[in-house]
Amino acid sequence: MAINPDRIIAAHSKLAEDPHDVDSWLLLIKHAQCRSVDEARETYEQLVLTFPTCGRYWKTYIEQEIRARNYERVEKLFQRCLIRVLSIDLWKTYLLYVKETKASLPTYKEKMAQAYDFALDKMGLDIQSHTLWSDYIKFLKGVEAIGSFAENQKIAAIRKVYQRAVINPMMNIESLWKEYVTFEQSINPMIAEKLTQERSRDYMNARRVAKEYEAVTRGLNKTHPSVPPTGTQEEHKQVELWHSYINWEKSNPLKVEDPALIAKRVMFAYEQSLLCLGHHPDIWYEAATFLQESSKTLQEKGDVDSSKLFLEQASQLFERAVSGVLNKCTLLYFTYADFEEQNMKFEKVHKIYQDFLDVPNIDPTLCYVQYMKFCRRAEGIKSARNVFKKAREDERSNFHVYVSAALMEYYSSKDKNVAFRIFDLGLRKFGSSSEFILAYLDYLSHLNEDNNTRVLFERVLTQGTLEPKDSMEVWNKFLEFESNIGDLASVVKVEKRRAGILEEAGIAVGENKHTIQVIDRYKYMSLLPLTSEELKSIGYQSLTIPTTTRTGLMP
Amino acid sequence: MAINPDRIIAAHSKLAEDPHDVDSWLLLIKHAQCRSVDEARETYEQLVLTFPTCGRYWKTYIEQEIRARNYERVEKLFQRCLIRVLSIDLWKTYLLYVKETKASLPTYKEKMAQAYDFALDKMGLDIQSHTLWSDYIKFLKGVEAIGSFAENQKIAAIRKVYQRAVINPMMNIESLWKEYVTFEQSINPMIAEKLTQERSRDYMNARRVAKEYEAVTRGLNKTHPSVPPTGTQEEHKQVELWHSYINWEKSNPLKVEDPALIAKRVMFAYEQSLLCLGHHPDIWYEAATFLQESSKTLQEKGDVDSSKLFLEQASQLFERAVSGVLNKCTLLYFTYADFEEQNMKFEKVHKIYQDFLDVPNIDPTLCYVQYMKFCRRAEGIKSARNVFKKAREDERSNFHVYVSAALMEYYSSKDKNVAFRIFDLGLRKFGSSSEFILAYLDYLSHLNEDNNTRVLFERVLTQGTLEPKDSMEVWNKFLEFESNIGDLASVVKVEKRRAGILEEAGIAVGENKHTIQVIDRYKYMSLLPLTSEELKSIGYQSLTIPTTTRTGLMP
Repeated sequence: MAINPDRIIAAHSKLAEDPHDVDSWLLLIKHAQCRSVDEARETYEQLVLTFPTCGRYWKTYIEQEIRARNYERVEKLFQRCLIRVLSIDLWKTYLLYVKETKASLPTYKEKMAQAYDFALDKMGLDIQSHTLWSDYIKFLKGVEAIGSFAENQKIAAIRKVYQRAVINPMMNIESLWKEYVTFEQSINPMIAEKLTQERSRDYMNARRVAKEYEAVTRGLNKTHPSVPPTGTQEEHKQVELWHSYINWEKSNPLKVEDPALIAKRVMFAYEQSLLCLGHHPDIWYEAATFLQESSKTLQEKGDVDSSKLFLEQASQLFERAVSGVLNKCTLLYFTYADFEEQNMKFEKVHKIYQDFLDVPNIDPTLCYVQYMKFCRRAEGIKSARNVFKKAREDERSNFHVYVSAALMEYYSSKDKNVAFRIFDLGLRKFGSSSEFILAYLDYLSHLNEDNNTRVLFERVLTQGTLEPKDSMEVWNKFLEFESNIGDLASVVKVEKRRAGILEEAGIAVGENKHTIQVIDRYKYMSLLPLTSEELKSIGYQSLTIPTTTRTGLMP
Repeated sequence: MAINPDRIIAAHSKLAEDPHDVDSWLLLIKHAQCRSVDEARETYEQLVLTFPTCGRYWKTYIEQEIRARNYERVEKLFQRCLIRVLSIDLWKTYLLYVKETKASLPTYKEKMAQAYDFALDKMGLDIQSHTLWSDYIKFLKGVEAIGSFAENQKIAAIRKVYQRAVINPMMNIESLWKEYVTFEQSINPMIAEKLTQERSRDYMNARRVAKEYEAVTRGLNKTHPSVPPTGTQEEHKQVELWHSYINWEKSNPLKVEDPALIAKRVMFAYEQSLLCLGHHPDIWYEAATFLQESSKTLQEKGDVDSSKLFLEQASQLFERAVSGVLNKCTLLYFTYADFEEQNMKFEKVHKIYQDFLDVPNIDPTLCYVQYMKFCRRAEGIKSARNVFKKAREDERSNFHVYVSAALMEYYSSKDKNVAFRIFDLGLRKFGSSSEFILAYLDYLSHLNEDNNTRVLFERVLTQGTLEPKDSMEVWNKFLEFESNIGDLASVVKVEKRRAGILEEAGIAVGENKHTIQVIDRYKYMSLLPLTSEELKSIGYQSLTIPTTTRTGLMP
């Protein structure tokens, strides 16, 4: 059942555009499965590089290596994915692999028990984990025990697993409970009732929670590969379902006292969701915030060690976040940096900002702005100036670093002249950016120096570095300036000059252009000199290009 | 053919909502026509009050009075409408009325000739005016002349009208020309050719222009009643057609040298368009601007008297504009005031602003702002302060007058403290307006006094006068302020307080509210810490309510 080579080529070229196109990958995987693993390996490597948290893809890759008996490779692959990819199917594959390949070893029993313990530690909270538990028990029961000491040890080991299992909310918990009751009966009918009686309350609690667990995770598509947000309805629905599940765990459905257990279950839910939503920065941030808050709760309870542990976990989670697929996401770096700043680990904060700046193909501007702010508040203006120096030397930096640095000098060091010089420096480089020019004008005009302001207006409007379209907002500001300071003749003069530019740029050339242009002379804050119907009828739209955010001249 | 009374009632209640509903008026007019004029008069009066420039409605009203032989009323009605409503049909009705009712008077001939002269003076440029011309000629021809002196006078009078007519672009100009040629032939074949030869060049020019005139006015719905802008496609089309016609006249299609004649024709076009578009402020403004520019052209040519005349006409046009249906349109008052300010007629400017302030049921705020600006630039800060005093005492005034007055003091008198006091005064009255508070904060923060700024933030955010929803932008500014000045702890504290308000107000309560809220900590100018896809996927919208215009702290 060979696949048409044209379809393979098409899939590759689709993936060149969108490396996360799941349909194309489906085809390539089918193709890979038809080939020898040596031929397919490159495809698989690309696959798990693109989807590092997709258990299904790892499993497919590993199974093909197992079929080819490349056990060394198999084990290296398990090492790469197992701990990071808490997918129940992947873990079952792992256990099966150990069972089938290690049976002949003299240390088989120990190895197998270790594998089960490992698996239960990582995956024991999964709603589908009952087969892990029952397989483990079956394995333990099958171990040969000679002598009553060994027999008793065996019973104790089995009982221990049973007793953990029957209070663990999961599917099929009922049959495990029945098995356990039978087991105790078979050991010692005299004390069986007492032993099971002791557990029955917790079992019933777990059974109740298991039902809720099943309901709240129903609909989750846990095997969906993690892709960047697409904005589809389907994705939105999944995000909502994941949040319900996480929030359900946060509500402590088991009604336990131990904050560590609650947190463990919540974090298991977060980890599960990150397998599918690893490209969603908000999940990472909220998971880290949860750990930080848990740490605080524990600290308030006096449990300093656990509190510290949670803080460390939060830090590790942040580190994982910025090392993975979201390694260009500034939000995660900034929240990470602020987290460490709150812990007073300033050196680490420097490293975090620096790490982002070292990523290739990024715009470092916002990072420099935040980095300077951090330096200013943590270490003082001199440290911030060092960062500004770096930013200036970095060719990728945009004008915002100049605005930010200048206003920092003005607001923090109260130094008008340094700020002025920084703006002037920026103007030489960013004379074609109206956003920068407006910030500079805004700054200067607030100093209430009419002449300097007017000079700057003339300078930027006549030097020709601004595109006519971009210059409109500057012209409007000039108009506002003259209408506040100047006489009517100056206002009309600026208006006429602006009109010339407007016509040149092909903006507002309609029949009623004069009226459209005069509107701006009279508007004030949100007040306009015509009704909205009248404005519509003459085709007036504010001639300014709205910017998402205004300059933060507000200190 | 009586009209169902229910339909009359429905029409009245429709008109109570929308006094310009043309369909309802149509029904009421039909109803009125079925009744005696004494019963119908109230409806007609309301009609011409609502549509003071609609020739068709005036005509219907007057015709019913004529039928009832209420000649005194008829003449009063003509006095009210004729000069203002340059509608060809209305004027024909007038001439017919004079003809039919004055025939028995001894002064009939003089009265009739006067009426024709009057009509040609006002309506002679109309494309449909040929019947006026030919009727006049027919009338003149019918006048009995005894003796050769009288006979010659008669011929001269007829020739004069012919000679004016055959160079006047209008429909059927060809038949008038033929008539004229025949006329001259009948008078004196010897000189007829010479006389007509002299005119033929101008006649041909007029005939060419008449064709263009017809084309450029085709599609104009000249009998459409004037209603406030509705934004319909149809209206848009009409506005465009009117503009083409006006622009065509501006292009001097007759290719004459006399600027006064060009202006007369252009103004006739404007007047025609205002009959239908009288609710469109842009047409008024552009007509006045045209007169002003014509005045300037004439002045440059040295024709001081005509220049002055045009200026007076512009002033009169403005006065008509603000006295008519647009008597609440601030744009027209402001442009009128600026026009008179340019002519240095400051007393008149005061009167114009005052006239607007005296209109009942208006918001005077923007007018006070502009009035203060005028006073400041024309007469100085003291005069502006007087206006501000009035504005403060006027209960209708909104907060903008405080912002404007305070910034005027800051920028013009460079007096920080007076500005500060005015803002403080405003805060007592407008503590619930976030727009005002933001303007105040903006002002204060630019003075670079951190403590005062922080005190104001706390004051407005804790006194509870702001609705939670309105307070968001203030909280965002506070966040920005702390992120520029404060330490991380202050930033986080403000963020948490803001989060509390957000949740209280039911804003940003989704699952990813924490992430949504932290975005605002990191954004800078137009830079955001996530991609737009990521922002969309977490449902981030800027928490600030965008205001159309920002405070003009920009001087």
